[in-house]
Amino acid sequence: MIDDFIRDVALVTKVVTDVEVLAARRFDYWAASHLRNWQGRRMPSAGCVVQPTDSSQVQAIVRLAASHRVPIVPFGLGSGVVGGIMPTNDCVLLDLSAMNRTLSIHEHDMLATFEAGKNGMAAENEVAELGFTIGHWPQSIAVSSVGGWVSTRASGQFSTAYGNIEDIVYSIEAVLPTGELVTLGKAPRAAAGPDLRHILMGAEGTMGVITAVTLSLRALPECQRFTAFHVDTVDQGFEAQRRILRADWRPPVMRLYDGTETKRNFGDFQRERSPMLIMVHEGPTSRVDAEMADVTKIALAAGLEVADPGATNNWMQRRNHVPSWADLFDQGLVVDTIEISAPWSKIGAVYSESIAALRSVPGVVSASAHSSHVYRSGINLYFSFAAAVPSTDMEAAYFECWRKVMESTALNGGGIAHHHGAGRLRKPYLALDLGAAGVELLRTIAGAVDPLSIMNPGNLIPDRTNS
Amino acid sequence: MIDDFIRDVALVTKVVTDVEVLAARRFDYWAASHLRNWQGRRMPSAGCVVQPTDSSQVQAIVRLAASHRVPIVPFGLGSGVVGGIMPTNDCVLLDLSAMNRTLSIHEHDMLATFEAGKNGMAAENEVAELGFTIGHWPQSIAVSSVGGWVSTRASGQFSTAYGNIEDIVYSIEAVLPTGELVTLGKAPRAAAGPDLRHILMGAEGTMGVITAVTLSLRALPECQRFTAFHVDTVDQGFEAQRRILRADWRPPVMRLYDGTETKRNFGDFQRERSPMLIMVHEGPTSRVDAEMADVTKIALAAGLEVADPGATNNWMQRRNHVPSWADLFDQGLVVDTIEISAPWSKIGAVYSESIAALRSVPGVVSASAHSSHVYRSGINLYFSFAAAVPSTDMEAAYFECWRKVMESTALNGGGIAHHHGAGRLRKPYLALDLGAAGVELLRTIAGAVDPLSIMNPGNLIPDRTNS
Repeated sequence: MIDDFIRDVALVTKVVTDVEVLAARRFDYWAASHLRNWQGRRMPSAGCVVQPTDSSQVQAIVRLAASHRVPIVPFGLGSGVVGGIMPTNDCVLLDLSAMNRTLSIHEHDMLATFEAGKNGMAAENEVAELGFTIGHWPQSIAVSSVGGWVSTRASGQFSTAYGNIEDIVYSIEAVLPTGELVTLGKAPRAAAGPDLRHILMGAEGTMGVITAVTLSLRALPECQRFTAFHVDTVDQGFEAQRRILRADWRPPVMRLYDGTETKRNFGDFQRERSPMLIMVHEGPTSRVDAEMADVTKIALAAGLEVADPGATNNWMQRRNHVPSWADLFDQGLVVDTIEISAPWSKIGAVYSESIAALRSVPGVVSASAHSSHVYRSGINLYFSFAAAVPSTDMEAAYFECWRKVMESTALNGGGIAHHHGAGRLRKPYLALDLGAAGVELLRTIAGAVDPLSIMNPGNLIPDRTNS
Repeated sequence: MIDDFIRDVALVTKVVTDVEVLAARRFDYWAASHLRNWQGRRMPSAGCVVQPTDSSQVQAIVRLAASHRVPIVPFGLGSGVVGGIMPTNDCVLLDLSAMNRTLSIHEHDMLATFEAGKNGMAAENEVAELGFTIGHWPQSIAVSSVGGWVSTRASGQFSTAYGNIEDIVYSIEAVLPTGELVTLGKAPRAAAGPDLRHILMGAEGTMGVITAVTLSLRALPECQRFTAFHVDTVDQGFEAQRRILRADWRPPVMRLYDGTETKRNFGDFQRERSPMLIMVHEGPTSRVDAEMADVTKIALAAGLEVADPGATNNWMQRRNHVPSWADLFDQGLVVDTIEISAPWSKIGAVYSESIAALRSVPGVVSASAHSSHVYRSGINLYFSFAAAVPSTDMEAAYFECWRKVMESTALNGGGIAHHHGAGRLRKPYLALDLGAAGVELLRTIAGAVDPLSIMNPGNLIPDRTNS
């Protein structure tokens, strides 16, 4: 079937069957894929890679894939970290990297439309030249695509004021599994039935192929300033942040690092072994002045101590560093980060019990966390773990650490996925968030939108049999 | 079938077949229904009204309705204005008004859970006693339900800072057409697949029955102050608001009234026949001070003139007045409001061409607008029209006015539904927003979620044959 498909699709778009191109797209940035690759295990390639240059080619590809029953794996810039990309020999990998144009930047409406494969940093730089910012700063910004941000429901480092990707998206153009092109989102806000953009946001390629995204921009802020605080305990830090949000302040960046992570990231600025809270304040100068004064007052009243804002500056300079997995495996370490969120009343228990659960896994040498996205109702946590185990035990240790945090988070009342998406990694745990009935609803919708199951099969949607 | 259903459902919940109760629920607040009723035309009643007192009864009702193939019309407090409620003799009207409990108010997490039938003002008053606000102030707040807010994707008067209902909802409990109970939303934010809350928000009863809603609260603001400005033209007013948003200020309330509506609402404060812009500023005092100073500077630079903030106070006092349709019909007038939104670059044309289009309808004696919900990318408009026509022509004039605004809005690049929902009134125009492929996607999802088509059939979802 794939051979017939390749023959037909070559008439409508660029097809690559070159071994190197296929090999470079066998997986994305998921640690477990890199581990398997590092261990020399066989990682299948797609049957072919197609590289469309516009949405009409994507339509033709999807229609041919449907008629040939060939599974489609959409691939942006490969920065996913939860197992969304696992092609097989009988599938087509739909590489969106050649769809990287800026289709329009409307300065008056502060809207910019990018093709899905547009590099995030390139998009940000283009609007910045005109005095704007997208305001979406995932750590991956230099290596992720605008379409990928939407497909995975990404969050950026400035989310506390500027929102997550769903708060920034104005409209989404996508090719549905039928081959139809939809553009969802025509106005600043709508009450025209369910907001169908949300069927595509977070679908991770299972509901169609996102081909272009229009984002609502912000003017570059008048000023940007930093604050930093020493914190006695993470619980004290959570409480300070809760009170800041409750007072209706939303510093774009609020990051609370536990003692371990403070030492690792801000050793020069740390007070003994204390956690630290760092903040970035942005906007009109008069508001930033008011915010810094009020937020500092709230922080001090919560027991925090003013620290050198050089710590915050330090973070700003290094914030988009992305590690090399292989370097860590070479050192005998398997590591990852796990992001979850919980209401304020639950976050303390989620933190302490997840750290304890991680430490209970044989070989774990480090378990720590910071928070980086704050809401009126609660906050996220970003756990980091490292296990020093023999190569043969690395994969088991990896999945066991994930299991511990997923279960501990859910047991203590948190949500198991803050912003990296679900992929194959969290698929077994989705019911902890959605409940069995919610998973069934997701399956029902996916089954209707993609009745032939050609859209990234195996990803995200739990099978009926294994739920 | 309905008789068998009534026999069975009486074993699980309260059933009413009393003529008066049925008659009182033949329609909601839609002007066209009231017109038909005022004209003495036959308005069918439901076959029965069920009044469950908890979600397990709703499950039992839905399961019985499915097995008997009886259509279900969910009914909150009846404040809908777009034709969502049109029962037939063979359907069950699922009256949620007895599900009006406050299930929990969690002060630390600032979360409150209400049953779907909870009156909005009662909910607001309860949290206000504890120092909180929901921050959602639809004009209908005294007569609408919390579940209805979610089901219709409502907006409140303070949305420019506090967001629309989708920004306030934390989780939704609903009974799906299968009878399964889902709770969607477990954490402050999630990337666990598509956000399925959005399948229920705006579904207007077509995807299931919302039984409870958890909302994310705000602390009552430290201070509240008013500003008001005279504006030369509505276009000048739009531009001032655009610049205010672009400077990253978001006064919770920003309302621009054209000359006609200024005269009607703020005659005592009006400068000649000019439009007016009124604003409410809330929050920490230092931020409100900064906001008022900066916003005033921006407004003056855009050519506005400071007016007496008594106009704003005037609006605050009278803002939740809801008219009686019959009084207007008695005066020989058929009237309604129509809310749409558009990007900044389109809103001027949408305003002027829609007003002109309304005025072209025979009998129209008044056509005016104000804006009341502002976004970085654009703004809404709330048109009002009045036609003085013989009773027999009222319905035709009514639908013609709607058609003119729907088509003029779409033609000029706006979205046809800002916050009242679609119902039967906008159903014929949904494709203007979603496109034919978007409508087909909506139908596909609805058909999968509700394969027996028992959930409020005829509402919202365009039939395949008439699209």
